[in-house]
Amino acid sequence: MENKIVECVPNISEGRNAAVVAECVNAVASAEGVKVLNFTSDYDHNRSVITFIGTPEGVSEAAVRLCKKASELIDLTKHTGEHPRMGAVDVIPFIPIKNVDMTEVTALAVNTGRRIYEEADIPVYLYENAASASHRRNLADVRRGQFEGLSEKTKLPEWKPDFGEGYHKTAGISIVGAREFLIAYNIELSTDDVNIAKAIAKTVRESSGGFKCVKALGLMLHEKNTAQVSLNMTDFNVTPLYAVVEKVKEEAAKYGVEVTATELIGLSPMKALIDSARYYLKIRDFDYNTQVFENHLL
Amino acid sequence: MENKIVECVPNISEGRNAAVVAECVNAVASAEGVKVLNFTSDYDHNRSVITFIGTPEGVSEAAVRLCKKASELIDLTKHTGEHPRMGAVDVIPFIPIKNVDMTEVTALAVNTGRRIYEEADIPVYLYENAASASHRRNLADVRRGQFEGLSEKTKLPEWKPDFGEGYHKTAGISIVGAREFLIAYNIELSTDDVNIAKAIAKTVRESSGGFKCVKALGLMLHEKNTAQVSLNMTDFNVTPLYAVVEKVKEEAAKYGVEVTATELIGLSPMKALIDSARYYLKIRDFDYNTQVFENHLL
Repeated sequence: MENKIVECVPNISEGRNAAVVAECVNAVASAEGVKVLNFTSDYDHNRSVITFIGTPEGVSEAAVRLCKKASELIDLTKHTGEHPRMGAVDVIPFIPIKNVDMTEVTALAVNTGRRIYEEADIPVYLYENAASASHRRNLADVRRGQFEGLSEKTKLPEWKPDFGEGYHKTAGISIVGAREFLIAYNIELSTDDVNIAKAIAKTVRESSGGFKCVKALGLMLHEKNTAQVSLNMTDFNVTPLYAVVEKVKEEAAKYGVEVTATELIGLSPMKALIDSARYYLKIRDFDYNTQVFENHLL
Repeated sequence: MENKIVECVPNISEGRNAAVVAECVNAVASAEGVKVLNFTSDYDHNRSVITFIGTPEGVSEAAVRLCKKASELIDLTKHTGEHPRMGAVDVIPFIPIKNVDMTEVTALAVNTGRRIYEEADIPVYLYENAASASHRRNLADVRRGQFEGLSEKTKLPEWKPDFGEGYHKTAGISIVGAREFLIAYNIELSTDDVNIAKAIAKTVRESSGGFKCVKALGLMLHEKNTAQVSLNMTDFNVTPLYAVVEKVKEEAAKYGVEVTATELIGLSPMKALIDSARYYLKIRDFDYNTQVFENHLL
């Protein structure tokens, strides 16, 4: 078996104190077999995202070390920020990348959740593919009430943590799960009317009857005076990028509006982009696994 | 320095006797540090193409072993086929893939050419980036006269081999060089009029004043009763796939004809496809090296 690679993208509840963020990143990087690809902090959200890959053992160890370090440095009783949060390390998704399947990564997430409680003393909710019940799959549902609501929430039988009891008094609860690669993708429109972006977002998102595995919001980019459809594509194999872009173009045309540009936030797997190349170039009988040169190198 | 990878795509003058082809492929695969990705044989052309990658030392050794084996098994005095050819191993291009640049691969090609003469006793012409003079850059010019013309050609001072004198009496001359990745790409039209494909090919190819690094022919696909523009894209960083497809669409429209499909023959580097995805999806501020996930794994 070739080497296995898992991605992990923890979100930590600190986006203002660069020294704290650096210590957290260093805790991740200290685990053997792990490579930090990227980390970004947002002041308004007071939140940082760390992206790293590694062996299953490596990413699990890194996540545990991160939870220990963050619980020393981050106190949620003093935390404010625009983004909802429940833990010092708020959410820890594991994503299969290479030579591992979702079943294996789900087991890894469960095992890591157990270790976070046992080794860092932080209770854990499991979510998405690692969820222990259907009402715990959706991250927004699990996080509802945020840190401040944990005292009440954890008393409800249906919201008892999966590992541990109650919550850590300053580090809250960490939400650990397994999911597919998420692509954050924005589509800008030739209008300053945010209501058009909101209407289009409603048309394309799954929760309003649109594309499966698509979350969408209509937003205003005030600096550019431009309306934007902001997307999370949670499974590009189910709904590809081009399908959403073409639908947004079609809907925008009804308002006499055009798609002026799109924006990829962070990383995309090459397959998500190559699927769109294949569609627009009309390549027939295309075999992704054998015809893309780099697939022979990976 | 990370591991270096070079690709090599030798064309051998045997496409009918599968046992001979297998022995040649095995000679390549016997070199250490080499991986054979693909080999294909064409009966009418009486020619096979072997695609392999490996370390610089590995691909060089594999090319020398291939020349030795092919000169034992292939006799050009008895060879017939539609494709022009000059050597038992006719042409041996080396292509930089990873952690090597064209300068280094050019030196590798020159060194391998010298070894082919010294160790396999087959004279060598160098071509493309390895050419010793500008009139020797173009493969078609080097190969003009084919095997049958070598007796006369090699007597001309301007066509003395780069390594060796004259030619091998049964294995001819091998043509060794360094070039960029070549993409073989076909565009099918909604017409059975081959003259339209020929006219469009003339518009897009470099030799008629079209796109740089594009070779094109108009062909008839008799089985499908469809005209096709058949392309060799010799540097997709200079002329991308989408530029040619869009130009062919535009020219075809002048005849009331559409592009119905395209076809990728063999392999394409992921960047050639992702460049087209970026263009059609209108992704702005896209950083290929950092935003494509797999670039962090390679």
